[in-house]
Amino acid sequence: MSTKLPANPGGADRPIGIFDSGVGGLTVLKAVRARLPGEHLLYLGDTARLPYGTKSAESVSRYALQAATHLVERGVKMLVIACNTASAVAMPALTREFAPLPVVGVVEAGAEAVVRVSKSGHIAVLATESTVRGGAYARAIKARRPDARVFSQACSLLVALAEEGWTRGPLVEAVVREYLHPLLEEKKRDGLDCLVLGCTHFPLLREAIAHVAGPEVALVDSGETVALVVEKLLAEQKLRRSQNAKGDACFLATDGAERFARVGSLFLGEPLAAQDVEPVDL
Amino acid sequence: MSTKLPANPGGADRPIGIFDSGVGGLTVLKAVRARLPGEHLLYLGDTARLPYGTKSAESVSRYALQAATHLVERGVKMLVIACNTASAVAMPALTREFAPLPVVGVVEAGAEAVVRVSKSGHIAVLATESTVRGGAYARAIKARRPDARVFSQACSLLVALAEEGWTRGPLVEAVVREYLHPLLEEKKRDGLDCLVLGCTHFPLLREAIAHVAGPEVALVDSGETVALVVEKLLAEQKLRRSQNAKGDACFLATDGAERFARVGSLFLGEPLAAQDVEPVDL
Repeated sequence: MSTKLPANPGGADRPIGIFDSGVGGLTVLKAVRARLPGEHLLYLGDTARLPYGTKSAESVSRYALQAATHLVERGVKMLVIACNTASAVAMPALTREFAPLPVVGVVEAGAEAVVRVSKSGHIAVLATESTVRGGAYARAIKARRPDARVFSQACSLLVALAEEGWTRGPLVEAVVREYLHPLLEEKKRDGLDCLVLGCTHFPLLREAIAHVAGPEVALVDSGETVALVVEKLLAEQKLRRSQNAKGDACFLATDGAERFARVGSLFLGEPLAAQDVEPVDL
Repeated sequence: MSTKLPANPGGADRPIGIFDSGVGGLTVLKAVRARLPGEHLLYLGDTARLPYGTKSAESVSRYALQAATHLVERGVKMLVIACNTASAVAMPALTREFAPLPVVGVVEAGAEAVVRVSKSGHIAVLATESTVRGGAYARAIKARRPDARVFSQACSLLVALAEEGWTRGPLVEAVVREYLHPLLEEKKRDGLDCLVLGCTHFPLLREAIAHVAGPEVALVDSGETVALVVEKLLAEQKLRRSQNAKGDACFLATDGAERFARVGSLFLGEPLAAQDVEPVDL
């Protein structure tokens, strides 16, 4: 991994731009890379202004536009909004602003996936405060399945747990149980069968969440779903790199390369060094 | 409470400016108001860029300077840096920049208090990641008592717990225990007798922290200490308002008046309405 872009960016060899408020979106990058190892990836974490999840829609939209503009100026062939909060509030604006550049958001991808998986149509969404308040998941799910019943739960502490690297064990499960309690009450009443991990931090806590939710509830990780959508769009637009190529990943952060590397390694599931993270100013 | 400043600010009637990255500093405002009910207080929460506690020293210094400049332009008679992180990294710069305006930082005030309280000189500091990394508490304590032994522990999750309003009970104590474990091992070895609540969020968890730490460890809350320092400085500089006057408190926030009011009420210990919070841009 390096912070150098491909020497001659153009056409299919241009990188896919992925942005998030911080390191959480690295779970999305990881999923995209697992499915499309030949693609160059350019990741931007807006660490100077994280978290987006507790900020107003106006601020988040402004930040998302600045981050996306930076990636577009670096010549990406596609934009992935790996931040649920930004995706929830800024997706239409970004799609308009950068058309015809394809823009993929985690919320739309997650909604797409969950309506395929859910039998009962009773779905729970775990997300940040802003994502829940904005109601984007419920809208995106109901647009695809009007009879769906969506229960949303803000889980701010799960973000802090993931960033601290506390991802399993009794304490983590106790926090998850505290948040899931009202949803599991619903389950008894309504046959809830799907739970969307509506924040890129939550896949790190997948095991604990699955344990508390029980085997009858399927977990939908939007990172994996985004990778499928990206693959499909690249094929449609003939923007896919050669299958034999080896893709590179570059990392940009608006603050704290050292922390980005340290906490990012947890999300990426492999070591990342501070000197591999290029500081940028938006 | 209102967002209106005194009609004719000047001399002793000017407000005391208090700033923090968010709502945590309201525990300091509450302590200052309890001790000095006659003073006008002007509080600025930089909610658009919170938390400072995980950001780089360079970013925090820049944010602190912008926030302080805004308060100075509004004519405050004194600056209180109610954010431990900002106080730890930006105190000397702010003191220079705004001299001869008196500047009070929570770190210096906390260090002052703990060396008075501690008998053994073995002191623990609970703080954010940035405050611990910068080592400001250890320096400030050792400057006053060179033989002090200071153990610092970063406790990021306690911030999230306080903001979520989860302030007591077994789950909260389990998190506190996880963080205090290494310090309490030290206690066995070294007779640790004082614990500094080195983040303005932590007084909300005081009961749980005290329970885990045990009765032999005294907790030092820098909010109360700041109030004492402010009182002393106002008297020295003849800037104290009449003892019979009734002070007003005004609230400014760089983002999310609704959330500021809701979470801020927890810290203030009384209701605060969104319309009482004036939005500002730094």
